[in-house]
Amino acid sequence: MFNDLSIVLVNPSHPGNIGAAARAMKTMGLSNLYLVEPDDFPSDIAKALASGADDILDQAVVVSTLEEAVVGCQFVVGTSARVRGVSLPLMDPRGCADAILKELSCGSVALVFGREDRGLTNEQLYHCHLQVHIPANKEFSSLNLGSAVQVLCYELRMSWLLKAELVVLPKSRSHELATMGDMERFYRHLYEVLQSIGFLEHSSHEKIMAKLRRLYGRIRPDRVELAILRGILSETQRCLKKES
Amino acid sequence: MFNDLSIVLVNPSHPGNIGAAARAMKTMGLSNLYLVEPDDFPSDIAKALASGADDILDQAVVVSTLEEAVVGCQFVVGTSARVRGVSLPLMDPRGCADAILKELSCGSVALVFGREDRGLTNEQLYHCHLQVHIPANKEFSSLNLGSAVQVLCYELRMSWLLKAELVVLPKSRSHELATMGDMERFYRHLYEVLQSIGFLEHSSHEKIMAKLRRLYGRIRPDRVELAILRGILSETQRCLKKES
Repeated sequence: MFNDLSIVLVNPSHPGNIGAAARAMKTMGLSNLYLVEPDDFPSDIAKALASGADDILDQAVVVSTLEEAVVGCQFVVGTSARVRGVSLPLMDPRGCADAILKELSCGSVALVFGREDRGLTNEQLYHCHLQVHIPANKEFSSLNLGSAVQVLCYELRMSWLLKAELVVLPKSRSHELATMGDMERFYRHLYEVLQSIGFLEHSSHEKIMAKLRRLYGRIRPDRVELAILRGILSETQRCLKKES
Repeated sequence: MFNDLSIVLVNPSHPGNIGAAARAMKTMGLSNLYLVEPDDFPSDIAKALASGADDILDQAVVVSTLEEAVVGCQFVVGTSARVRGVSLPLMDPRGCADAILKELSCGSVALVFGREDRGLTNEQLYHCHLQVHIPANKEFSSLNLGSAVQVLCYELRMSWLLKAELVVLPKSRSHELATMGDMERFYRHLYEVLQSIGFLEHSSHEKIMAKLRRLYGRIRPDRVELAILRGILSETQRCLKKES
């Protein structure tokens, strides 16, 4: 039931945590693991801690950027111990599991965990549509990475088990949603145009692009809609070139 | 809030799991740990895995039988990976957490975990009022001991937060949403620009604008975001005028 869901660990520093995450995933019926630049992998320690979930480690996909890990996904959820400046919609694990299950009915989803010592950076959160926060003890909030994966995967399984008996309603969306790869191409195109029209001259490029990412991330355009947005950008460029 | 609740680990074989359990407890606001005949404790490995939850290890009570560990309790819950012959009432972690919270209003409660390789024996389950089962993948159901403690403690905390109405997630939206009037002005502005760049020449104005309305309507931009979108349009117009 979780074929279209991936767990993404960004820069995990300890191979034991990769193994623990694989074990946690398998106990809850998940199997797709992506590793973004792990410090130490493959590793015997990971294998030992996986404790029988070797298949998940063997099939794990190692990539060098978060962007690559989520390129085929329509929906990306970032985990976060702290509530950051980036104001993404924020959910607890239960609400998040429900949201992910809904998304899985129409596309692929990634659930992203940051490095042990610092979590996801703001830059990494820009790739996410939603932030999930485990409501831990404020005085001691740092869950072990494997434990955090376990809690989220557990909630996903619970949500699936509870919903398994429900009638599947027909999809309301007529077109396929854009993938993260489509969105990145759109953002690059948008950035080019904003530079051409001088929109970025008086403010921080990064801030503006972060705001625009959050905004268009929220729309979740389908492919036809994205084609319209890209068309507007191309037409703007054509006009600018013609007139210059 | 969990002063009258104890976590009891029966014969834990690996000290790392004791440390992981202590950490898991502390992240969820629990503090009372009982160890029934641990193979190796105190231990530096336990301390390392506790990762700052040393206070829980320091205060842990080591006893030689399960009976001793639960002697002061009014209610005892046993965890179980398999559903045993013993016909105790069986619950999932969520239901169990609710039941424990109810019991805590009138007495002390123990939540008991068995040895890593065999779980609780029938003899040990005889000391329990209730059995809790984490509904794991049937083909790979063995959670790590620390992870099982994490899941149960997480459900206890969620249950407590929900009862206390404390799962208040901070609002993620910082600015006021745009009004319908703001949106109409934006659509008119957008329409003007699309005409200037010739985007509407080859297709039905009405259809394109309807699609764009649906798309931006879905974003529900706040006022700051709408100002950015309007800014992009104004800057585009300025460029077009300057160059013509």
